[in-house]
Amino acid sequence: MGQKHIAETRLKVRFAETDMMGIAHHANYLVYFEVGRITLSNELGAPYAELEKAGFSLAVSEVQLRYKTPAVFDQELTILAWMEKLGSRGLTIAYEVLDAASRDSLVTGATRLICVDRDGQVRRIPPFWFDAMQKGLGE
Amino acid sequence: MGQKHIAETRLKVRFAETDMMGIAHHANYLVYFEVGRITLSNELGAPYAELEKAGFSLAVSEVQLRYKTPAVFDQELTILAWMEKLGSRGLTIAYEVLDAASRDSLVTGATRLICVDRDGQVRRIPPFWFDAMQKGLGE
Amino acid sequence: MGQKHIAETRLKVRFAETDMMGIAHHANYLVYFEVGRITLSNELGAPYAELEKAGFSLAVSEVQLRYKTPAVFDQELTILAWMEKLGSRGLTIAYEVLDAASRDSLVTGATRLICVDRDGQVRRIPPFWFDAMQKGLGE
Amino acid sequence: MGQKHIAETRLKVRFAETDMMGIAHHANYLVYFEVGRITLSNELGAPYAELEKAGFSLAVSEVQLRYKTPAVFDQELTILAWMEKLGSRGLTIAYEVLDAASRDSLVTGATRLICVDRDGQVRRIPPFWFDAMQKGLGE
Repeated sequence: MGQKHIAETRLKVRFAETDMMGIAHHANYLVYFEVGRITLSNELGAPYAELEKAGFSLAVSEVQLRYKTPAVFDQELTILAWMEKLGSRGLTIAYEVLDAASRDSLVTGATRLICVDRDGQVRRIPPFWFDAMQKGLGE
Repeated sequence: MGQKHIAETRLKVRFAETDMMGIAHHANYLVYFEVGRITLSNELGAPYAELEKAGFSLAVSEVQLRYKTPAVFDQELTILAWMEKLGSRGLTIAYEVLDAASRDSLVTGATRLICVDRDGQVRRIPPFWFDAMQKGLGE
Repeated sequence: MGQKHIAETRLKVRFAETDMMGIAHHANYLVYFEVGRITLSNELGAPYAELEKAGFSLAVSEVQLRYKTPAVFDQELTILAWMEKLGSRGLTIAYEVLDAASRDSLVTGATRLICVDRDGQVRRIPPFWFDAMQKGLGE
Repeated sequence: MGQKHIAETRLKVRFAETDMMGIAHHANYLVYFEVGRITLSNELGAPYAELEKAGFSLAVSEVQLRYKTPAVFDQELTILAWMEKLGSRGLTIAYEVLDAASRDSLVTGATRLICVDRDGQVRRIPPFWFDAMQKGLGE
């Protein structure tokens, strides 16, 4: 039995991502999550681009976010992303955004994704991609 | 006993808001929700700018979104926003994004907001703003 | 000889568009210009979606912006957009962003666009779209 | 006489930055330029945050961009940024966006920045920041 794969991505809060409250605007964390998700699937050998080439997309169907501490301009962040659930037609990925230096937790969340074809119809995740992502569960 | 106030805002999906899946990127709905929230507080006579001038901000502490049908470029949307809960230190606002023409529901969600002062400390919502928002509950 | 068509679009600066300087971040004006450009082509009977359906896109090849006065949160803006030049393979559109109430000029600019096919090859603008846009020159 | 300092920043095109043309939306390059500019001032020992703390901001007054080749999702880019001109009240920074692997040039541009105080009045760049940035000119 293996261990759950946790992907880490480093990024810095961009000036354009701040708002007039002087902090990273809350919508940006969905973009940070997505960046973390791409790292995760790349690290598991299941690049998102391959899925797209095979005619499939992952549509976001649900999102939860919990904000604890705001991030500020030029702050270095670490985005953790890992597989929470993997089903035949969809998956749930969980995230934690940390201050890169202190590893204090700033934001947590999860996104549920559904596999769809080019007509937007729900489809089974193709085996090559499913098998690679399954390794991330570490079970 | 009055009725709950539901604010409606119209907007069109911008080209810059689309992604390579050909749909409005899912992070934009947090921005659309925020636009709806500003309309709601303006309509209730509690402009967000007044709160800011008084030294307070509303920090987003939690968000949920459920995506049913994707919106596409130049599609006209109606953003519904209404008060769900109002407490002394925070409030919950709920949203529904509709196709403006058919009024089909595309996305639903809610945000929990906490009143903070300029040092980020949790504070009571000032009475002038609380009272105005309370009318939105229609109770 | 007709008059040059100037399209007007109204929009309000969104909270998410502000930055920690308390103003609309300068990159947003390219998005505002694009919104104005879509209004212009819609008003001239040459919707951008029709061009896309015919297999063509307009790729931005050059941009200039001049910023005079910053816009702030919730400020209502008027985006003016008009045809500056129309060639067989490309066009230049000019813009002016005004405060909607005072009509003071805040930002001016122009974008040069090139017609490309789905492989990114430069192509002649299809006649149905060219003819519609030509009316906008008012010559 | 030293050499002009050219700052290099690496980044990957995010999914959220793509548009329905399947490429990085053209407005993102202003954000990439800004990221490169922050790296440049950090490397020259003139962090932007220090300027802000001293009560000054750099307001963007002019921008030019020239787009040659579009960047796509997950493409690794190198942002080059260097001082073009430094005056007592403002500066011009130039940029080139390269494909990180081939170093092919994708986009070039420049931004003119003006030093302003908290009331938006044009001011002399404070000496500590001016002197640090001057080293970047390599003259």
